[in-house]
Amino acid sequence: MNKRGHLWGIGVGPGDPGLLTLKALEALKEATVIMAPLASSREESAALQIVKEWVDETRLRVYGFPMTREPDSLAACWREVADEVAALVEKGEKVVFLTLGDALTYSTFNYILQQLAGKIPPECVTTIPGVTSFAAAAAAENFPMVCGEELLAVIPLPDGPLSRVRGLVRESDTVVFMKIGNRLKELMAFVNEEFPDRAAVFASRVGTPGQYLCRDLDRLPEGVDGYLSVLIVRKAGIKP
Amino acid sequence: MNKRGHLWGIGVGPGDPGLLTLKALEALKEATVIMAPLASSREESAALQIVKEWVDETRLRVYGFPMTREPDSLAACWREVADEVAALVEKGEKVVFLTLGDALTYSTFNYILQQLAGKIPPECVTTIPGVTSFAAAAAAENFPMVCGEELLAVIPLPDGPLSRVRGLVRESDTVVFMKIGNRLKELMAFVNEEFPDRAAVFASRVGTPGQYLCRDLDRLPEGVDGYLSVLIVRKAGIKP
Repeated sequence: MNKRGHLWGIGVGPGDPGLLTLKALEALKEATVIMAPLASSREESAALQIVKEWVDETRLRVYGFPMTREPDSLAACWREVADEVAALVEKGEKVVFLTLGDALTYSTFNYILQQLAGKIPPECVTTIPGVTSFAAAAAAENFPMVCGEELLAVIPLPDGPLSRVRGLVRESDTVVFMKIGNRLKELMAFVNEEFPDRAAVFASRVGTPGQYLCRDLDRLPEGVDGYLSVLIVRKAGIKP
Repeated sequence: MNKRGHLWGIGVGPGDPGLLTLKALEALKEATVIMAPLASSREESAALQIVKEWVDETRLRVYGFPMTREPDSLAACWREVADEVAALVEKGEKVVFLTLGDALTYSTFNYILQQLAGKIPPECVTTIPGVTSFAAAAAAENFPMVCGEELLAVIPLPDGPLSRVRGLVRESDTVVFMKIGNRLKELMAFVNEEFPDRAAVFASRVGTPGQYLCRDLDRLPEGVDGYLSVLIVRKAGIKP
């Protein structure tokens, strides 16, 4: 009789290998297969970079995914990856699925979980949470993010105009903007309009050798982009 | 000449010692003083419980704080704790300040940072982020929390009626409710009204031996309370 394997979805944090949790490291060491994502436009997997000192190539499976927001292509891709994961677990492999940041905050693992439903028993799946990019960005700048009764909104930039999220922005005290991509200038204009008295942290590739941090949004240099970036805005500023 | 010490504010996660980060563990091992909070109404510090296997009593300083929302008493307390921390760092001590969950998401360390401004040089302070209770609760139930363009709101229950946060709730796709305390029944009534088609996870003391998890809010047993609890509600439910 074949003994079933296991799947761990682990959030590896946004960049600094030191932000890996003890539990995630344990899963990494025990794994027989480590699945790492590679966007078709990039040469390296950002999630793999973070844990590479614990991953040897013999256990590694890199899977590609299309750089598209087209729902059918994406669903087909996640279904294929989920089928591969399910087959591995069925064969008895101990599979670790890497995701950047936290495992269920805007991560691929959300889709894999949904595609796996009915394919492997729930007791064969363990999610290990991780540190989000915005928690790491606030920490890197010792930036008081949310206290007391303050309301926090986390907003991945929408397809289409930013005015779509104005309602949420106006109801919140601190706003985290994610998935900024090539829309940083547009976002700055929106933030200047909505948050005249703000304090803010912009963080790009936080915790990696290419980290860039900036608290004065008016001094963001040309050439800074929004890839793997996060912007935290605190509406009322910081009062000493 | 006296060499200045250092302060690390570390988020120890919500309960499971395995969710400590490698960096936080390193700071804990290097510390000469470990500051742990104790609410005046409790016998044990929840944050200390999580890391106790790495903390010997000789390095430990437990500080009390009043169970009040009265701003002046709280400010006086945080000022006193910050003064103590500043004096320790000035003497050359390596101080670790423990907080539950992430270090800057509704944690005491936000107040300590603000009170420390001007008392010790910024380069003597390092914040180490951690895993939040809601990331851990979603993970414990393999619950897809936020994907794609979905909007996330994090809401500590307000003093006064829940209708104060209705605007934010209606603008979001997934809502995390925190600081539920003794208002769980009231919150359930609000959630039933606002989210008829929801999927949800209620988690109390996630990751501790007293952990309680529940996805069917209609079956929450009598006697479950909201202390160290979090409720995640996904407005549209989970679609397979």
